[in-house]
Amino acid sequence: MQKPSNPQGTRDFGPAVMRKRNYILDKIRSIFKYYGFEPLETPALENLETLTGKYGEEGSKLLYKIRSNKEISQELKQDQTEEIRKILPDSWIPGKSKLGLRYDLTVPFARYVVQHRNEISFPFRRYQIQPVWRGDRPARGRFREFTQCDADCIGSNSLLHEADLISIYNQVFTSLNLPKAILKINHRKFLEALVDELKLDFPVVKFTSTLDKLDKIGKSGVIKELGQYGVNEKQCFQLFEIIGNAELNRENLAKFGQAFNQNPIAQKAISDLEQILNYIQDLDLDIRIELDLSLARGLDYYTGCIFEAVIPDSGMGSVSGGGRYDDLTGVFGLKDVSGVGISFGVDRLYEVLETQNLWPKNLQTKDTVLLCHFDLKSQLYAVGLANKLRAKEVNCIVYPDLKRINKQFDFANKMKIANAIVIGDNEIETNTLSIKNLVGGNQKSYSFEEALKYFKG
Amino acid sequence: MQKPSNPQGTRDFGPAVMRKRNYILDKIRSIFKYYGFEPLETPALENLETLTGKYGEEGSKLLYKIRSNKEISQELKQDQTEEIRKILPDSWIPGKSKLGLRYDLTVPFARYVVQHRNEISFPFRRYQIQPVWRGDRPARGRFREFTQCDADCIGSNSLLHEADLISIYNQVFTSLNLPKAILKINHRKFLEALVDELKLDFPVVKFTSTLDKLDKIGKSGVIKELGQYGVNEKQCFQLFEIIGNAELNRENLAKFGQAFNQNPIAQKAISDLEQILNYIQDLDLDIRIELDLSLARGLDYYTGCIFEAVIPDSGMGSVSGGGRYDDLTGVFGLKDVSGVGISFGVDRLYEVLETQNLWPKNLQTKDTVLLCHFDLKSQLYAVGLANKLRAKEVNCIVYPDLKRINKQFDFANKMKIANAIVIGDNEIETNTLSIKNLVGGNQKSYSFEEALKYFKG
Repeated sequence: MQKPSNPQGTRDFGPAVMRKRNYILDKIRSIFKYYGFEPLETPALENLETLTGKYGEEGSKLLYKIRSNKEISQELKQDQTEEIRKILPDSWIPGKSKLGLRYDLTVPFARYVVQHRNEISFPFRRYQIQPVWRGDRPARGRFREFTQCDADCIGSNSLLHEADLISIYNQVFTSLNLPKAILKINHRKFLEALVDELKLDFPVVKFTSTLDKLDKIGKSGVIKELGQYGVNEKQCFQLFEIIGNAELNRENLAKFGQAFNQNPIAQKAISDLEQILNYIQDLDLDIRIELDLSLARGLDYYTGCIFEAVIPDSGMGSVSGGGRYDDLTGVFGLKDVSGVGISFGVDRLYEVLETQNLWPKNLQTKDTVLLCHFDLKSQLYAVGLANKLRAKEVNCIVYPDLKRINKQFDFANKMKIANAIVIGDNEIETNTLSIKNLVGGNQKSYSFEEALKYFKG
Repeated sequence: MQKPSNPQGTRDFGPAVMRKRNYILDKIRSIFKYYGFEPLETPALENLETLTGKYGEEGSKLLYKIRSNKEISQELKQDQTEEIRKILPDSWIPGKSKLGLRYDLTVPFARYVVQHRNEISFPFRRYQIQPVWRGDRPARGRFREFTQCDADCIGSNSLLHEADLISIYNQVFTSLNLPKAILKINHRKFLEALVDELKLDFPVVKFTSTLDKLDKIGKSGVIKELGQYGVNEKQCFQLFEIIGNAELNRENLAKFGQAFNQNPIAQKAISDLEQILNYIQDLDLDIRIELDLSLARGLDYYTGCIFEAVIPDSGMGSVSGGGRYDDLTGVFGLKDVSGVGISFGVDRLYEVLETQNLWPKNLQTKDTVLLCHFDLKSQLYAVGLANKLRAKEVNCIVYPDLKRINKQFDFANKMKIANAIVIGDNEIETNTLSIKNLVGGNQKSYSFEEALKYFKG
């Protein structure tokens, strides 16, 4: 028999990995909550019409489509089935697909908001932590089933939301021992202002696809390419001077204004960023915040600030992105609802923490206690003791079989259990607990209350 | 434009529902952990060959199959595509399905154990809380996407595991305010013993399908039906005497032994249950535990104890089931690994708590605090204060717009926020916080430390 396997691009998360993943997810979830974001979950199954046309040509290819056998047999006419069977082998199951798998958390959120708009009080802050599916070619940090952690605020233009999201970035990265994370910020109006100032007569999206080549061909290469469209090279050099990684502060914003010759479109971006600076000025942020005019991710729908977070020297692309979108729900018929949101890629954060070994020490051993015994009498006593400990929220297992005590310790060591309680006649008579620390090796006697203190601190 | 919707049989869980669902899930998860169960998550996508043939004929119909467009276009030959297009409309997408959606948590667990058997220390206790998908006809308490909460222990024959699972049932139901829950227990050997004693020459599975009619046609009806197979009616009446809802205790087990004329197969069941009673005798359980010889759920693979939990007067079928299986991993090539497990249906528990209104009071308002202000100056002050509160794990929102204070209170009331902090010039000067309780209406001044105590207790 062939050894069973999980599908390519998917993963099983065993206990040790789950502890690490939950460490990241619990941190992010708590921080989202501190900022008043509320939980939302949408189904993995979406109507295909909700998903199609929302993710561009590439996205449409990667979308997973679904049918159940029942639906297929109900819908196919007998003669159709027979005709198809002549062309295709039996294992090919034709059928009309009506359902797709969740591709991101943003489109389902937009659908939810439109569908429930009369029950929602705006501005509405929601967080959503769920898996998404994409039929992509698997690679390091790229999976077919992976988890997104999104926080969005919808129904308000206030830049306080952008300030809160920046503050969330700071708290997430510092709490994950990643204070060197860099948050890159751009504003769509800067990109529009570049097109305006350079008098390019093509849409900003085309301009940004040229700008995307910066990494590969450098500033001079990009300027040369723009030269084909008749831009003034000198002016282009002046403007490109400010494209790069400048710290977000008032001084640099003033420099940007000058470089743009006070272009009114650029002024809108500068005014937004100044307001955001007002809100965050006293917050004592640890991470570096950079203005990066070459940042253009997801420009199709971002209309204001654009965010991207990277961990320097991690060899990993961005670990988070986001921005403001003025018309996310428009595709579902609800116009003029502005929102701003961010999304953390938990799988990439996991890779970074794993590679740089930034996990806290207490993830390495288990907090579960093993109760060991010498015979049926002490095992039965252990069962009662275990339930008293559980009532005080101590996680524990009674060793299930009547085996030699060394076998029981072996099991604890293999399981990376840190503490064992040894129950013998003496402990039963004196109503005490012998706790053996399996890391250090020492064994000591405690009363029940003392033991609770030892385990729960 | 048509209003968007979620697919039939699926649900969006908004914040209010999420709070209630998490209340249930957090309780179950904590209790699983108290008993040393460790987290496992498997992918929603499974190879189709892992799933097929595992769920019977009905299950095979309900299985969801998946493809991505990319895979389809790569696999279909051009001429095949053209042929098929002649028969089917464009929206029908033929393609070979290699993937399916998780149908339960047991088969993926078995796959995981076989695949990772060299890394696992047995006995292995895992819990798994994830959605599963079935293309069934939706009804009350029956969805196409729903959540299962499973706890299984694999790799040990010790009946201590059964005792622990019974204790978990007790703790889950009492902690959810459902102390009237009934745990029904049966043992496969009792069913085999009935067939043996009645000298029926057909398999136990066929017998249980007759026994399943008890609810509809009563004992006499079932006995009449069995009469066709030549059973001794008098003996049948004697045996059926003990089928019903008897409390699990030593006295009733002795009665059962007599009714079975000390049949050795029945004795094996009785001996197992006596051992379990030994383990739970001192535990002071609140729920009622019943011996029910008509219980036969999932008999296809249960080989020892069988569990089913019901909530009387809830109008809901079972809310949990489980049992011991001696050969779960056999289908994947790993023989003789015994396990025992239970599964809670969180969606059904939700329905019961909702119908009987058993939610705790603190789920009705939010613990998020709204910081209200009078102008930009007090709003900026509020942002700083909010971040100090967040550092102390108080969840809060600064009202994002500069609007009249009553508008801000309106928002808080709509959001069911219980407490607002009002920041004016006086509060800024005196370094105090005015907390307005939006449920009671009273407002009082606090220092930061006092406020923390007010919010966090």
